[in-house]
Amino acid sequence: MAEPAPALPHIVVIGAGFAGLTFVREFPQGLARITIIDRQNHHLFQPLLYQVATAGLSAVDIAQPIRAVFGARPNVEVIMSEVNAIDLAARRVTHARGELAYDYLVLAAGGVTSYFGHPEWARFAPGLKSLDDALRIRRMILCALERAETEPDPAKREAAMNIVVIGGGPTGVEVAGALAELTRTVLHRDFDHIDPAKVRVRLIEGSPRVLAAFPPELSASAQRQLERLGVEVRTGVRVEAIRAGELVVAGEMIRADSIVWAAGVAASPITRHLAGISLDRAGRIQVLPDLSVPGHARVFALGDIASLTDANGVVVPGVAQGAMQMGRHAAGVIARELRGEEFSPAGRAAFAYRDKGSMATIGRSAAVAAIGGRHLRGYAAWLAWLVVHLLFLVGFRSKFSVLLQWTYSYFTYRRGARIITGVSGEGSAGSA
Amino acid sequence: MAEPAPALPHIVVIGAGFAGLTFVREFPQGLARITIIDRQNHHLFQPLLYQVATAGLSAVDIAQPIRAVFGARPNVEVIMSEVNAIDLAARRVTHARGELAYDYLVLAAGGVTSYFGHPEWARFAPGLKSLDDALRIRRMILCALERAETEPDPAKREAAMNIVVIGGGPTGVEVAGALAELTRTVLHRDFDHIDPAKVRVRLIEGSPRVLAAFPPELSASAQRQLERLGVEVRTGVRVEAIRAGELVVAGEMIRADSIVWAAGVAASPITRHLAGISLDRAGRIQVLPDLSVPGHARVFALGDIASLTDANGVVVPGVAQGAMQMGRHAAGVIARELRGEEFSPAGRAAFAYRDKGSMATIGRSAAVAAIGGRHLRGYAAWLAWLVVHLLFLVGFRSKFSVLLQWTYSYFTYRRGARIITGVSGEGSAGSA
Repeated sequence: MAEPAPALPHIVVIGAGFAGLTFVREFPQGLARITIIDRQNHHLFQPLLYQVATAGLSAVDIAQPIRAVFGARPNVEVIMSEVNAIDLAARRVTHARGELAYDYLVLAAGGVTSYFGHPEWARFAPGLKSLDDALRIRRMILCALERAETEPDPAKREAAMNIVVIGGGPTGVEVAGALAELTRTVLHRDFDHIDPAKVRVRLIEGSPRVLAAFPPELSASAQRQLERLGVEVRTGVRVEAIRAGELVVAGEMIRADSIVWAAGVAASPITRHLAGISLDRAGRIQVLPDLSVPGHARVFALGDIASLTDANGVVVPGVAQGAMQMGRHAAGVIARELRGEEFSPAGRAAFAYRDKGSMATIGRSAAVAAIGGRHLRGYAAWLAWLVVHLLFLVGFRSKFSVLLQWTYSYFTYRRGARIITGVSGEGSAGSA
Repeated sequence: MAEPAPALPHIVVIGAGFAGLTFVREFPQGLARITIIDRQNHHLFQPLLYQVATAGLSAVDIAQPIRAVFGARPNVEVIMSEVNAIDLAARRVTHARGELAYDYLVLAAGGVTSYFGHPEWARFAPGLKSLDDALRIRRMILCALERAETEPDPAKREAAMNIVVIGGGPTGVEVAGALAELTRTVLHRDFDHIDPAKVRVRLIEGSPRVLAAFPPELSASAQRQLERLGVEVRTGVRVEAIRAGELVVAGEMIRADSIVWAAGVAASPITRHLAGISLDRAGRIQVLPDLSVPGHARVFALGDIASLTDANGVVVPGVAQGAMQMGRHAAGVIARELRGEEFSPAGRAAFAYRDKGSMATIGRSAAVAAIGGRHLRGYAAWLAWLVVHLLFLVGFRSKFSVLLQWTYSYFTYRRGARIITGVSGEGSAGSA
């Protein structure tokens, strides 16, 4: 009697962000069975999440269901659930609806908003890591303007027209720039009693310059371009307190109905399920050069959940490119191992990050970009940003028509992106 | 010293649905100052709301901010607020953020979901009157399938794959048809452990036939087309109880994780603010032939909040066309009165409803339509529906490019419409 074919090895991937998705895409078909598990049912194109928060794009433009990406691929299973335990010794992951035994485990759960030890600030200053975050911010800002429109008290009206963005990294810069542009160009005809162009957008940064990870001249250029758009930039100051509708910055109290937190990211708290693993200050797993977890050669950590200074001494940044390259590298490492039919952690290739450049947009026609040693500013930088992101998108979505769709949405400031959902009102008779 | 020009009369319009929006659009510019007030910031294209609920279109495809419609028009002010008192004697409307004195009042607040005296059912069986309703239904259905995918218990899995739609009018028929099509054609490749084609979609109707307001042969045709799509239609039965995950129909208990209520609409509860006004059984204001409220010639009620048997003995139906025609009629009545510079309620024109036809789609390539005495079924009816709705949309959105946008979305089942938002997960470190 013929023996049944040996079962394929099982790889469990936790997280369907850039790292997890790229890992699965790059992994050779047929070599293993893969289960990808995420709390959400969709993959999010995070570089454009700030567009949803600032009413420039709608949620559907930047998210796609994970099942639509992998549904048709044999040997890839998708589970929408939340992991609540990881047994590294028994090689088992437990989630809300079952258990998964693995041969290899890929931790790609990403990052979460961090409030630097002040979790109570989360109620008053939403972060920007998920679609729900973005929709919450959008609702907060648009509702504030609606309130300002009918507010007779000048102090309250001013507070309703104050927006403070905390954190001068790329996210904060992009949010602040987009909000300044939204209020000064898109909304200005919509209101009768307020002039949206008078909305004050402040950007607060603790270090001496915005975009501190960029070359200094680009930081300066970004600040100039932001100020040209009307953003008030304050560097070298820290937030001391945040309460409902107000915050304290360097001893000064500012009353603002809209406060956005873009200042800190920590690793997904899934890391607390890993007994005995060494984490850095932001809770990230300090991986080995091959991206595996020290002491657990079958477990890999990729993207924002991991921290690594690579083989060339480069600190891998928490950006999409870093996550994608790590995903590709880990897929290669495991594939080679499985083909070699021998488990050889010592011989694995070390990850080397290839810096393809850094970019940040400022409004819709300006940006800064550092690519291949060249610095670009203004419109040239923005064009470069556009090209890179379009290629990015095509790579993921593989459909030129979808690309046109997105481009159209982006350039026409589709009105639909400015609708407010989630505002409670009476919905049914007999329930008032 | 020259006297200042007399102030324009002030018209307050409550509600930015089809009736309110059409009233404002049709009202001659410069003749009066108009304030339109709504609890939401957007106008909703309700005929396509079922598409959002069934993951066929996204919210932005069918909604537009009210400010985008009227923002640039002088003498039209938009307020996002909730009305909480109406003083008919003093001619004053009080809302959450202020007061409005009016010369004419237009009540166009529409309808709300009615549970026939069982408001407790609302928790378990969402209605479909707002974007939040539609997104809630979408989330309910897609999450149920995600649960079914990993559910080991056959009874629970079956319940997760049961959908019951209550109400066999156009809304219920369209939702049921769209859900059957979604599960049998779009989702079938997305899952590994369940076959979405085995999802059971039941449509429950209390009267002897679905689409009871349509000609009998079209009711029969609709039922046949629904059954061809896989919907199980039960007529002549009433719902006796609804609890979490189950309902009782004609003595039989059905366990279903997804229950949609499309069976009843009552007038907006705003009518309770009107002292001494006669309401019908569904809470609607019984208006005079000129659409004014009996005893209050300066107050008009239009659309789903009103009930009228018109000058020709036709009962005006609660459909978009009815609302739009009433809006146009009232605009004409008030405009003529203002131009005549005399207040003459006795001479006003009586409203006559022009039945332009009734339609209901069943999936994306079938429908029934009764137009100008002709009955259409199947693909011909669906084409007619498409043309009518496209013209409809163009009228409102005035942009052919937007029309293309919508058409593209509709025909390509954009993946983005299948994302689930509003599912809670840990969002920030330091808050777990």
